[in-house]
Amino acid sequence: KFRELFLELHPTDQIDIFNNFHESQRTLVYEYLTPEEFAEIFQGMELNQQKDIVKELDQEYIAETLTNMYADDLASFLGELEDQEAQDIIDHLDTEDMQEIQELMTYKPDTAGAIMTTEYVSLFTTDTVDKVMEYLREHEPDAETIYYLYVVNELNQLVGVLSLRDLIFSKLNQRIEDIMGTRVVSVNVETDQEEVARIIRKYDFIAIPVVKEDGRLVGIVTVDDVMDVIEEEIAEDFGEITATKGSVDANITSLQAAKLRAPWILMLMFLGLITAGIIGQFEATIEKAVVLAGFMPMIMGSAGNTGTQALAVMVRSIAIGEVNRAGLRQLIQREFGTGVILGAICGVTLLVIIPIVYGNLIVAFIVAFSLFCTLSVATIVGAIIPLFIERFNIDPAVASGPFITTFNDIIGLMIYFTIATSLLQYIQ
Amino acid sequence: KFRELFLELHPTDQIDIFNNFHESQRTLVYEYLTPEEFAEIFQGMELNQQKDIVKELDQEYIAETLTNMYADDLASFLGELEDQEAQDIIDHLDTEDMQEIQELMTYKPDTAGAIMTTEYVSLFTTDTVDKVMEYLREHEPDAETIYYLYVVNELNQLVGVLSLRDLIFSKLNQRIEDIMGTRVVSVNVETDQEEVARIIRKYDFIAIPVVKEDGRLVGIVTVDDVMDVIEEEIAEDFGEITATKGSVDANITSLQAAKLRAPWILMLMFLGLITAGIIGQFEATIEKAVVLAGFMPMIMGSAGNTGTQALAVMVRSIAIGEVNRAGLRQLIQREFGTGVILGAICGVTLLVIIPIVYGNLIVAFIVAFSLFCTLSVATIVGAIIPLFIERFNIDPAVASGPFITTFNDIIGLMIYFTIATSLLQYIQ
Ligand SMILES: [Mg+2]
Ligand SMILES: [Mg+2]
Ligand SMILES: [Mg+2]
Ligand SMILES: [Mg+2]
Ligand SMILES: [Mg+2]
Ligand SMILES: [Mg+2]
Ligand SMILES: [Mg+2]
Ligand SMILES: [Mg+2]
Ligand SMILES: [Mg+2]
Ligand SMILES: [Mg+2]
Ligand SMILES: [Mg+2]
Ligand SMILES: [Mg+2]
Ligand SMILES: [Mg+2]
Repeated sequence: KFRELFLELHPTDQIDIFNNFHESQRTLVYEYLTPEEFAEIFQGMELNQQKDIVKELDQEYIAETLTNMYADDLASFLGELEDQEAQDIIDHLDTEDMQEIQELMTYKPDTAGAIMTTEYVSLFTTDTVDKVMEYLREHEPDAETIYYLYVVNELNQLVGVLSLRDLIFSKLNQRIEDIMGTRVVSVNVETDQEEVARIIRKYDFIAIPVVKEDGRLVGIVTVDDVMDVIEEEIAEDFGEITATKGSVDANITSLQAAKLRAPWILMLMFLGLITAGIIGQFEATIEKAVVLAGFMPMIMGSAGNTGTQALAVMVRSIAIGEVNRAGLRQLIQREFGTGVILGAICGVTLLVIIPIVYGNLIVAFIVAFSLFCTLSVATIVGAIIPLFIERFNIDPAVASGPFITTFNDIIGLMIYFTIATSLLQYIQ
Repeated sequence: KFRELFLELHPTDQIDIFNNFHESQRTLVYEYLTPEEFAEIFQGMELNQQKDIVKELDQEYIAETLTNMYADDLASFLGELEDQEAQDIIDHLDTEDMQEIQELMTYKPDTAGAIMTTEYVSLFTTDTVDKVMEYLREHEPDAETIYYLYVVNELNQLVGVLSLRDLIFSKLNQRIEDIMGTRVVSVNVETDQEEVARIIRKYDFIAIPVVKEDGRLVGIVTVDDVMDVIEEEIAEDFGEITATKGSVDANITSLQAAKLRAPWILMLMFLGLITAGIIGQFEATIEKAVVLAGFMPMIMGSAGNTGTQALAVMVRSIAIGEVNRAGLRQLIQREFGTGVILGAICGVTLLVIIPIVYGNLIVAFIVAFSLFCTLSVATIVGAIIPLFIERFNIDPAVASGPFITTFNDIIGLMIYFTIATSLLQYIQ
């Protein structure tokens, strides 16, 4: 009874329930479910969960379970294990699966090859509709999706595509080559996963074929995996702009989160100490007009805010990929223009307010002019650095929001105190 | 010849090419393509592009084109028009379409109802496999997807679901009720689009059915629209954390971008001026130990960085939706713990470095202790505010990164100068 009730559930719900079981209950699941049924649950789990579960199973059950997994899910699971552990498992697979998995594991992470699955349906141009329907009915193919059918020639090169919908709506005696689409959108095994996601989103595909240099079809990337890619890439961008790379995970402890973030915070703190040194150079200026110290936070804050805005614009434009290189250059100019306008608006506002509140025209001029210069520079810094980083292939972490903010803090304060020092003689 | 070549292309590519045409070439397209064919192109365009194109078409061609669009795409297009314009177009539709569109337009934006399509295939429990196959073949339904077939009872209530794959693999004489899945995952018309995206991602669905309170099936949301939702929601979160709401668009001018951002930057500048006032209170302290001014940027910067990290963690956790309310409370505690640990690490580091560089133990203690307190408070502020905002339904824009940063700047400086003032007598 348990078996029947459980198997009626969607695999995703089975996982949810399975997760709430304690070990003795889990043992019952292994008893009641065949390895084939359990594979459905197993391949939907998070990778570290899979590693824990594998320890509870006996060798034979594991081998059977893994054989029934989709090749891409199995490859990513094995990729997480120690080399020796992975090899042990691979050795127990049958030859065909083994070769497939080993090939999948050679693709670089974050490429189409790494996220594709090798279970798809391919047809020949000379097949007829009724033959294909019969084939599908009889073989119940193991493919992740049968909604797109890929057509290949005798060299296994991709020459056409057909949706199951097209197939159903065609006459039974038609040949595949007469009803297939010949302008097939495909990606290369080495295409970046972000580019794959962009294409699937653009064309509203359910899956996209993956080919090698010579046009041979080797796999497909399905839309469900692309949604995970989108989520992953966003988390990455988000991590960059907030310096939280890897520590957004809700399941780690305070200590683990602190460990991940401490290097960033410490590095930024040291940069802050450099600022302290720079301000130290202007100690005489501050001593003569302490009122100037009060405006430091505003100068820094505004520089940080406009810089982060420019950074966000560039990061999103690069990520969405709708803007080409010439467009990006134009965007930098736009950002610079925006910075100048914002600087002018803020400057004029301060020229009115500060004299009223502080009754000091020279201070007003120093602060307003500094802010104008700072905002103009800060936006250009925020806009250019991510491009610079991309071009020179430096670790993009360096372009993270806090670094640009701190960098802009330093620039802003230098502008401010330089202007203030040169006009100091006029203060009162 | 143009017609044939053009129609061979994927609609998405047709749009790309169409966009590069100038007006006279576009006129040719309208001449060569039937409104039905043009509808495919039209419904894939951006909304403001659609508005421009509509002006070039004659009344009859428009009406025909619109009739051939998917109901959801038509509803969102009409939603963008002036009420009168939209009504004019609706009046030209046939009665059935008209009612459908008007109903679609009543759903609140960002709900399942607003993004669903009403073109789906529904079956009765008593149908048989061969009857359904015959129906599909003969009617070539207009549905956006036929890969999921929804099963309803005589009240049109959703009672089951069947994939086209299941259908093909079943015996021809089987009844739908014997092969359908009865535990159907569905959403309500009023479910937030972000929740819809979460469910589709969780279950790896291609589409999800949308029901009314009484269980009546009214539409489906397809995975391609969900990908757009994910992108839209990310842009929103990104805008909040960087105060760039609406101004990330690469196609607006400097002046337009400045207009969008100026309110934020000005508001934050005024907050900065308040900081200036607060620091003004401590002018006597700064005058007595100007060296203290130099550490202000470091205190503020660190407060901003840890606060933003905590904010990012909460925003992502809320957005991903994997954490429930109790989990969020736990996460706040985790963030607080992280802040305390980071504060301790930074504090100890400063206690070592400042005496070496500045040779002043009291200053080192003031700065280190202030930083410890500031980081502990800043993380809790960053973590709590978004929850607070969510709970009290305040405009989430208020919780944006720069606001929390500025708020933390103020807290940090107040802690710093309060500690400094009370220990001032011990400096040298
Ligand atoms: Mg993989
Ligand atoms: Mg799309
Ligand atoms: Mg997959
Ligand atoms: Mg998957
Ligand atoms: Mg990326
Ligand atoms: Mg990447
Ligand atoms: Mg809609
Ligand atoms: Mg998924
Ligand atoms: Mg749609
Ligand atoms: Mg769509
Ligand atoms: Mg949201
Ligand atoms: Mg929303
Ligand atoms: Mg700051």
